[in-house]
Amino acid sequence: MEIPYKIYLSESEMPRYWYNVRADMKKKPAPLLNPGTHKPMTAAELSGVFCDELVKQELDDTTREYPIPEEILSFYRMYRPSPLVRAYCLEEKLKTPAKIYYKFEGNNTSGSHKLNSAVAQAYYAKMQGLTGVTTETGAGQWGTALSMACSYFGLDCKVYMVKVSYEQKPFRREVMKVYGASVTPSPSDTTQVGRKILAEHPGTTGSLGCAISEAVETAVSNPGYRYVLGSVLNQVLLHQSVIGVETKIAMDKYGIHPDVIIGCAGGGSNLGGLIAPFMGEKLRGEADYRIIAVEPASCPSLTRGVYAYDFCDTGMVCPLAKMYTLGSDFIPAPNHAGGLRYHGMSPILSELYDQGMLEAVSVPQTAVFEAAETFARVEGILPAPESSHAIKVAMDEAIRCRETGEEKTILFGLTGTGYFDLVAYEKYHSGQMDDYVPTDEELAAYAAKLPKI
Amino acid sequence: MEIPYKIYLSESEMPRYWYNVRADMKKKPAPLLNPGTHKPMTAAELSGVFCDELVKQELDDTTREYPIPEEILSFYRMYRPSPLVRAYCLEEKLKTPAKIYYKFEGNNTSGSHKLNSAVAQAYYAKMQGLTGVTTETGAGQWGTALSMACSYFGLDCKVYMVKVSYEQKPFRREVMKVYGASVTPSPSDTTQVGRKILAEHPGTTGSLGCAISEAVETAVSNPGYRYVLGSVLNQVLLHQSVIGVETKIAMDKYGIHPDVIIGCAGGGSNLGGLIAPFMGEKLRGEADYRIIAVEPASCPSLTRGVYAYDFCDTGMVCPLAKMYTLGSDFIPAPNHAGGLRYHGMSPILSELYDQGMLEAVSVPQTAVFEAAETFARVEGILPAPESSHAIKVAMDEAIRCRETGEEKTILFGLTGTGYFDLVAYEKYHSGQMDDYVPTDEELAAYAAKLPKI
Repeated sequence: MEIPYKIYLSESEMPRYWYNVRADMKKKPAPLLNPGTHKPMTAAELSGVFCDELVKQELDDTTREYPIPEEILSFYRMYRPSPLVRAYCLEEKLKTPAKIYYKFEGNNTSGSHKLNSAVAQAYYAKMQGLTGVTTETGAGQWGTALSMACSYFGLDCKVYMVKVSYEQKPFRREVMKVYGASVTPSPSDTTQVGRKILAEHPGTTGSLGCAISEAVETAVSNPGYRYVLGSVLNQVLLHQSVIGVETKIAMDKYGIHPDVIIGCAGGGSNLGGLIAPFMGEKLRGEADYRIIAVEPASCPSLTRGVYAYDFCDTGMVCPLAKMYTLGSDFIPAPNHAGGLRYHGMSPILSELYDQGMLEAVSVPQTAVFEAAETFARVEGILPAPESSHAIKVAMDEAIRCRETGEEKTILFGLTGTGYFDLVAYEKYHSGQMDDYVPTDEELAAYAAKLPKI
Repeated sequence: MEIPYKIYLSESEMPRYWYNVRADMKKKPAPLLNPGTHKPMTAAELSGVFCDELVKQELDDTTREYPIPEEILSFYRMYRPSPLVRAYCLEEKLKTPAKIYYKFEGNNTSGSHKLNSAVAQAYYAKMQGLTGVTTETGAGQWGTALSMACSYFGLDCKVYMVKVSYEQKPFRREVMKVYGASVTPSPSDTTQVGRKILAEHPGTTGSLGCAISEAVETAVSNPGYRYVLGSVLNQVLLHQSVIGVETKIAMDKYGIHPDVIIGCAGGGSNLGGLIAPFMGEKLRGEADYRIIAVEPASCPSLTRGVYAYDFCDTGMVCPLAKMYTLGSDFIPAPNHAGGLRYHGMSPILSELYDQGMLEAVSVPQTAVFEAAETFARVEGILPAPESSHAIKVAMDEAIRCRETGEEKTILFGLTGTGYFDLVAYEKYHSGQMDDYVPTDEELAAYAAKLPKI
């Protein structure tokens, strides 16, 4: 069978289930803990924050496959299947014998894979009869995705957007407004936690951890609202498994076996989704794959963080999660332009990393933008800075193959487009970008403040 | 055969030829005239401005099919086939018995259909051994597309960008730079015509006609350079026929017959491309289709212009074209946000319109943005303002079907995405958008200045 340049599954081939990798993990990710009692969070406790069905998914580490509800499948058909593309032009540019494939998730208005989970979370909120949802957004991809999903299902959507992004990314904000979301710069005076942070740090430009705290407070203090999150959580990785399952169906159809699978990792939603069914095979001993998480050198939670219980947010209103973390008040240097700025990492990926099931590398941002531009010129797609971390490491692997002569098959996740990141590209072009990384002393100081559990 | 929600042709089904609608026109479009002698432009005269192969295509009104060169097919495979989508959600929203389909050309980094011709023009320039090409861009879609194509083929690309867009659309400019193009705000002091316009109108924010003049001057005064244009010309409509041929192959495969075909029209490249093979059948008497060109009420060349020879540019350095025109120094009101701001219309479409083979309507811009937002919310794609003109009229047709009960099949061209047009969306949201249209007196004054031929 001739392999197409871009593989699109037909509608009948598209996955009808999400795959829950926890079902195949012998040692499961550690449970979320109540920040007051340090006891595992119960479904009842979590249901004040999250929708009931999502609580169930969050806590379920045994069900292997979740059927995707028909309404979500309908929405998925608006922008899925996403193409699995053979990067012929990049291979030629690098003069590598490696075969490079990428799964491109950017062909939708939200511009990234985030929509896969946004539609699921909005759907379950609607089914529960809720009025709306609250969330935070940094770069804006998640907020955009959620506002699209909420608009589709007729839900109210309140987005707390990190203030610096709110001001620097007016276009992202405007897309959310097209979809009817309300967008509030965080920290704001609409919440107690926001007012407290503003009082303590009047000039602050905000952080993801702070915006999470505000969104959670707004959800729990408004009847009919729940909080939704775009990464980190088990439920999000479950929904994002659609990326990996689709990829695996396409690769199996044409008999392609990836030797190396590469994804960028901030909170872990993309990487966790892409690798899910491959990791399942690896956990069950049915196949082997080298799996690489790529993070920015300026926010290196896997490569330089500690594996410990930590808060998911700055205001410490969220449950504690055991994860690789830099500390809940860690914020990357202001000049960091590459996204992936969350202080922690998905508990699932953290546990798998701790078990040695995946590798992690960190890359400096100018090298990431250099790879992004090379990719854009030969493959025609302007990548998001986040995605470009994976591009950089895929290119490094391919160059290594050129040197060794190995004909490896490399698969990476191209999570999104960079149309709203041109300020960062401009910084790169004008030489205003640096490669600052935190010192060991800085990281140790943050680590010292981790909760003692 | 069950019709997929989104129809993607397989690579083997994709068109391997462009269709030249002029071959089926009994009365051909009028020839370009030399602005000095008023005699038809010869191939020799045109070859100082355009590449040789493109001159041939420009003048050839008899060859029905042009095989697409293999190198261009390879590039097309990077972003084509584009999907033909059934707008189920829009149909439901409008409660219409009509079936609505759209051909979506926005899934590439340039964000529009412009890439279809950009790659062809860059390819022929490269084959001729040229160093580079020059062009103008207004909103920036064409400049972006051309910079991508030139980067792929290793050609230098000099873009004159209308000054107001250069300043208001820094992101578009930055994408072009990612692809290595040089971008100059027009009018500039790099050309004689630019210096002349600057001297006469020191505070001018530029116009498309003026940027064309600068690009042409730069091409003819630099050895190894030629000028390329993203719309209006016969060659451009030829390349854009790939949209229509692909659409027709997909529709024929599933036995879908469009009753009405709708496209936005600025210079005519999208509409001309979309309708080409359908118009061919209509011209040959093999099938009938209602075809509607949609233009902005603020720049109504078909609906309120005159069919006459006119200059293609402000500086009057280009050949004269017989077309529906508002006059070469017509500029839409400053508050016009919807693109499609060219004073004239493709000679092919002008002639077909004059023969009664297509209809034209004009729509006010706030109604266009209202339709855009409705579409974005239900179909998930944020449309370009240009494309939204077609959406508006497709929705009007569908609503009419609701009233009459007719189950018409409506096809429209969704030419691109609005990710770089959020300033316009913001204007719409904040109530700063008006529906100014030129008065009869204004249009008469421009028409009085048309060259007497």
